[in-house]
Amino acid sequence: MTTTTTPTTTATAPSAGATPSGIAIASLDWPRGFRAAVGAAAIKKAGRDDLALLSMPSGATAAAIFTRNLFAAAPIEVSRRHLRDSRGHASALILNSGCANAATGPRGVANAQEMVDAVSLALGCACEGVLVNSTGVIGVQLPMDRIVPEIPHMAARLAHAADGGPLEPFARAIMTTDTQPKMSSRTVPCAGGRTVRVSGVAKGAGMIRPDMATMISVLATDADVAPATLDRILRHAADASYHRISVDGDTSTNDSVFAFASGLAGPCDEAALATAFREVACDLARMIVCDGEGFERSLAVRVTGAATRADALKVAETVASSLLVRTAITGGDPNWGRIIAAAGRAGVAFRANDLELHVGGILIFRDGQPVEADKGAVRAAFNGGHVDIVISLGATEGSEAEVNSDSFLSCGLTTEYVRLNADYTT
Amino acid sequence: MTTTTTPTTTATAPSAGATPSGIAIASLDWPRGFRAAVGAAAIKKAGRDDLALLSMPSGATAAAIFTRNLFAAAPIEVSRRHLRDSRGHASALILNSGCANAATGPRGVANAQEMVDAVSLALGCACEGVLVNSTGVIGVQLPMDRIVPEIPHMAARLAHAADGGPLEPFARAIMTTDTQPKMSSRTVPCAGGRTVRVSGVAKGAGMIRPDMATMISVLATDADVAPATLDRILRHAADASYHRISVDGDTSTNDSVFAFASGLAGPCDEAALATAFREVACDLARMIVCDGEGFERSLAVRVTGAATRADALKVAETVASSLLVRTAITGGDPNWGRIIAAAGRAGVAFRANDLELHVGGILIFRDGQPVEADKGAVRAAFNGGHVDIVISLGATEGSEAEVNSDSFLSCGLTTEYVRLNADYTT
Repeated sequence: MTTTTTPTTTATAPSAGATPSGIAIASLDWPRGFRAAVGAAAIKKAGRDDLALLSMPSGATAAAIFTRNLFAAAPIEVSRRHLRDSRGHASALILNSGCANAATGPRGVANAQEMVDAVSLALGCACEGVLVNSTGVIGVQLPMDRIVPEIPHMAARLAHAADGGPLEPFARAIMTTDTQPKMSSRTVPCAGGRTVRVSGVAKGAGMIRPDMATMISVLATDADVAPATLDRILRHAADASYHRISVDGDTSTNDSVFAFASGLAGPCDEAALATAFREVACDLARMIVCDGEGFERSLAVRVTGAATRADALKVAETVASSLLVRTAITGGDPNWGRIIAAAGRAGVAFRANDLELHVGGILIFRDGQPVEADKGAVRAAFNGGHVDIVISLGATEGSEAEVNSDSFLSCGLTTEYVRLNADYTT
Repeated sequence: MTTTTTPTTTATAPSAGATPSGIAIASLDWPRGFRAAVGAAAIKKAGRDDLALLSMPSGATAAAIFTRNLFAAAPIEVSRRHLRDSRGHASALILNSGCANAATGPRGVANAQEMVDAVSLALGCACEGVLVNSTGVIGVQLPMDRIVPEIPHMAARLAHAADGGPLEPFARAIMTTDTQPKMSSRTVPCAGGRTVRVSGVAKGAGMIRPDMATMISVLATDADVAPATLDRILRHAADASYHRISVDGDTSTNDSVFAFASGLAGPCDEAALATAFREVACDLARMIVCDGEGFERSLAVRVTGAATRADALKVAETVASSLLVRTAITGGDPNWGRIIAAAGRAGVAFRANDLELHVGGILIFRDGQPVEADKGAVRAAFNGGHVDIVISLGATEGSEAEVNSDSFLSCGLTTEYVRLNADYTT
């Protein structure tokens, strides 16, 4: 994610048009070979869709990144096992919102397995070809008596659904307190005038209701990709997107990103496909940050000229996650002292006198002391919809500064965030 | 710091009485050999004391722990050098509030040195015997034209001050947005019916105004202690207190803890003296947490039965610092899922099924799933002035569980904290 692009403050898709790479922003539809159906099992609220089913052709490849939390939810345990048993292939994915099926013991695992079995039966595919995840309240059992009967109905709707149909119903069904569905799509030009498509949906992480604490994203392509390649592309995309954002630093029991490739559009240059996955993932990550409850203003921190890229990331993440920086950003407060104080406690070695701080392109701090700057301009830089912080550590020019740089996206910490997260669960 | 003691929610001293160790809570006065004077130089607000001077007999020993922030303030640089040059001895300490003299470049260092020189001249002691620190706005130069002329007046008042006089004027002069002065004192019985005294003052860290980000504490004893011993005792005390609290995780440019020993009361058993230092430091640390702006409810997390003590600390700190846990605490929300989710992401290896969670003494979670508990009792445990969380990881009984345990003190994150810290600096 670059910090020079101002994140959109709504979760709508970017305006159409080709990017410099030739990769084009595309309509918000699934790639060829993917069919989706949604259902309502009154898990969240009666009448709202809270089940989402995605099917793909037999032989489609699959990859996933799951939470590293030791209390990984029951469906994560099932999906991990299935992905291993199928050696990176899948036929379907079933998701529910409203209940995380986390901290639910052996009964939770049995329930996740029962959801998978119901999908396997309804679609006529092997059990280990079905992946599953849940999002919502922790420590509560799923209402299986309402979920299981709904699955055959969804399978029936799926049979009549358009191949490559719209992303939106699926994106809406997995929402918890997201205010907008999160979707993005790209097309990649390939040999022989063909194109392949990469599409993705996500639901938000953090800045969410007390009982909701999950990020889920699903990325899909119609390119023909081997499981190991898809896994590599997914990790590369997640590293540039979901691993470069923070809302509250709390990784959940259900965090997961799935990637599927139907293969129907044929092969594609790996680098171009990887770029498209990265762009879609970065769009979705930005939408997650900008759709948190209580969101007012986003914050990008770019660190250049560090001794290593890991150092650059550590400083960027420390500054972007600092409560004092994040509250100052909410206040539109040009309190740059907090920014350098956070950089100075990041646990990264650099010479304090070498640090240069720019906010909104304005040089604020150099040679260990503030630089005289136009106060109105500085205040304006802190008061837009997005605050752009660039910290140079030592090597300020040339290729080394660029190589050893990294960035992180966050948002102001607001009273609304605290208010919403201090609400009662029960 | 034990987690079984409910922290006092005001910054008043604990009620008098001897602790089981025989160490007694004492009147809020300096030990013998210490004289204090305060002054007003209109650094914070005209008419409020913002300078504090402490003197001790020639030959008194000194130790200090300074911030590890790379942007350590100018006075920290001067104090570090003086403490090294004097080989752990001091004659005086000068502090100011209202301006941190941090990020102020060479002029800031010259100003800190000038404060020290003025004290040295006024008290007739060597320069390197004077230590200095500042607290307040970052990036602003000290008003030296008002500070320097005030120092001889303070020295004159000091000459008439009582030896072992009250802590309060000094504790008040270093306050920034603290609502109460923070003071604590103990007496330790020694051989021959003698007693030595340990006293301390502090000002708050975090949960403070945008422009204030400093914890300063001064501990003093009249025991006769060699510099290396005092340093060891100080580190032991800080480790049990200031290193076990969190308000917002932002370590500042000016954080420092000073310790001085006048020697006037003669020698003392090191273990007993260390206990008294630790008790005073723990009192002050608790007062800091409970006097943050926006404070509503404190939170202690004790972790037992970890593989190592470092693991126990890491889990305790992760849970106590989690924004989702801290907002739930503010809401009095029995959302225990956030507590185990934070434990599960601490980066510490343990078997998830071994974790047992108690809140307020009530068993809430065991064997990977919630335990049926009285809902009213659980709600009450989350709704007192203090929430007590105990997490057992595996080894739940015997000496190993006790050895590999540690705890951390924090507080709920409130909308008031965000509101105050989002205010404008300028």
